[in-house]
Amino acid sequence: MSENKQRCAIGIDFGGTFVKLARVNEHGVIGSRASFATTGLKGVQAWLDEVQRHIEMLLADVADHTEWVGIGVGVPGFVDYAKGYVYNLTNVPGWTGVALAEKLTERFGKTARVDNDVNAMAIGECTFGAGQAYQHAVFITLGTGVGGGLLLNNKLYRGASSMAGEIGHMSIDRNGIESPMGKGGVEQYIGNRQIVDYAQKQLAAGRKSTILDVAEGRLDHVSPKVIAHAAEEGDALACEVFDYVADCLATIMASVAYLLQPQAFIIGGGVAAAGSILFEPLRKHLAARLCSHFMDRLVIKRAELGNDAGVIGAATLTFLE
Amino acid sequence: MSENKQRCAIGIDFGGTFVKLARVNEHGVIGSRASFATTGLKGVQAWLDEVQRHIEMLLADVADHTEWVGIGVGVPGFVDYAKGYVYNLTNVPGWTGVALAEKLTERFGKTARVDNDVNAMAIGECTFGAGQAYQHAVFITLGTGVGGGLLLNNKLYRGASSMAGEIGHMSIDRNGIESPMGKGGVEQYIGNRQIVDYAQKQLAAGRKSTILDVAEGRLDHVSPKVIAHAAEEGDALACEVFDYVADCLATIMASVAYLLQPQAFIIGGGVAAAGSILFEPLRKHLAARLCSHFMDRLVIKRAELGNDAGVIGAATLTFLE
Repeated sequence: MSENKQRCAIGIDFGGTFVKLARVNEHGVIGSRASFATTGLKGVQAWLDEVQRHIEMLLADVADHTEWVGIGVGVPGFVDYAKGYVYNLTNVPGWTGVALAEKLTERFGKTARVDNDVNAMAIGECTFGAGQAYQHAVFITLGTGVGGGLLLNNKLYRGASSMAGEIGHMSIDRNGIESPMGKGGVEQYIGNRQIVDYAQKQLAAGRKSTILDVAEGRLDHVSPKVIAHAAEEGDALACEVFDYVADCLATIMASVAYLLQPQAFIIGGGVAAAGSILFEPLRKHLAARLCSHFMDRLVIKRAELGNDAGVIGAATLTFLE
Repeated sequence: MSENKQRCAIGIDFGGTFVKLARVNEHGVIGSRASFATTGLKGVQAWLDEVQRHIEMLLADVADHTEWVGIGVGVPGFVDYAKGYVYNLTNVPGWTGVALAEKLTERFGKTARVDNDVNAMAIGECTFGAGQAYQHAVFITLGTGVGGGLLLNNKLYRGASSMAGEIGHMSIDRNGIESPMGKGGVEQYIGNRQIVDYAQKQLAAGRKSTILDVAEGRLDHVSPKVIAHAAEEGDALACEVFDYVADCLATIMASVAYLLQPQAFIIGGGVAAAGSILFEPLRKHLAARLCSHFMDRLVIKRAELGNDAGVIGAATLTFLE
């Protein structure tokens, strides 16, 4: 083994619509990438076949002095990280009770790690992105739901059986919106659909707003992105929507800060792409909800790895320990 | 050093009204105890003098083969654990910016550790009490306020600067009761005073209840203990009060469970002494707020060390590492 030997890993971001793969080096840099559609594939074997085909392509042009050390996968659902076992995936049929790490190691003869997708993103951001400087950081992703990952004492904290970090189900209202997960869970207020609902209801009630102009006059074209665009132009309703999202999020972040006192919150996902439209009211509401002992020491940052957080983080799992 | 050498430590539970001290061995067993009134003492030097006098008494009858290894103190306020530094104590004047561990080591020539009182109790319960079996446990104490301590990966988790675990300030209502700590903090609903207020208001409005009988007809004699007593006898108002306390507490516990997925919650403090009057509705409300993946694996237990948790835990701090 020469000292110049470099290591790389395959990171797989297993999403509900696409499976994204990348060859990632130890510095978190992507060498090459690939993807295929999740839909249409039938079951675990077909998925493994497709993954193998793409991994072979990704490794075809790898340099001689680079050693492939393993495969990491981030999946959209509940896993047992220690066992590399998938309990079930939220939106992918046929994936209940799958010993995925074992199957990957059998097929490729390499270390394999399986974690949930938000944990993988959190690892990526905390190792190579916005969270690098911190020992204690909370990663939050805003999308269809609200996900979370916890970096405590410089390690991902997974809880009793790999299920920790479910920030989206933390309650902002004891008597709030009911769901199978409880009452008042924050994602029942600020998930993508809920954000769009808020705007659509106001528009349907005849409220004037440029949101509809940005959406080319079609209510069904309203999206968080469209609302963000209108907010940037100063539209009152659009700004109100983001102020509401920020306050709901600040409520949970204040609670998390009082419980864990992290050094930083790293916020990613589609809605976070809105930038200052979200982050300005977020800081304001958080300051109103958190005493200065906690607020003064706290950093609130936007995630930096964007859509690559998943593959980079998944690959990073195999570099750990 | 003979192999039979045993170690002991002095644990100090620094309360707003009493300072309790105990000599504690490595098995968490108290050898002897002492206490003095906090009120009347002027400043840090007088406190140290009094502590020294009592420590000398506690160690007077210690066996020859027992080595005194250190002093641990649990204080009611914010500390920097790593430095053994007291920022300030909530209800004790003259204790702002005190390098307490340093002063103790100077005076006694022993290791000294200083933590907040709830962390000390949590360490005690998780080392020698109800939390012994767990790697991940959340300790909650119900009293004037609601305090918390987090055992994660078998170590007390303190956060960025020793302030983690402030469960009492976590919000149960985004638009709830305002305090200097934010909006809707759970201790604004279920602190001792708030529990008593709830009952007193109903009684003052003429609601029939045996609470007033237990309180010998005096509204100002109503206490959580009095209400618990009436609830045990089946009084409807008293049961309603505990059901409300349980639901507010369950709201926060569900949020904490989704975030940290602990194996157990250990609940102590005066209100927890109510026993099944509190724990039965607590389990019911928690089951309604937490999906089975989380609820089925979760243990909810009453703290076991009672009033000794503070001194035992404080002593335990010096046995760590």
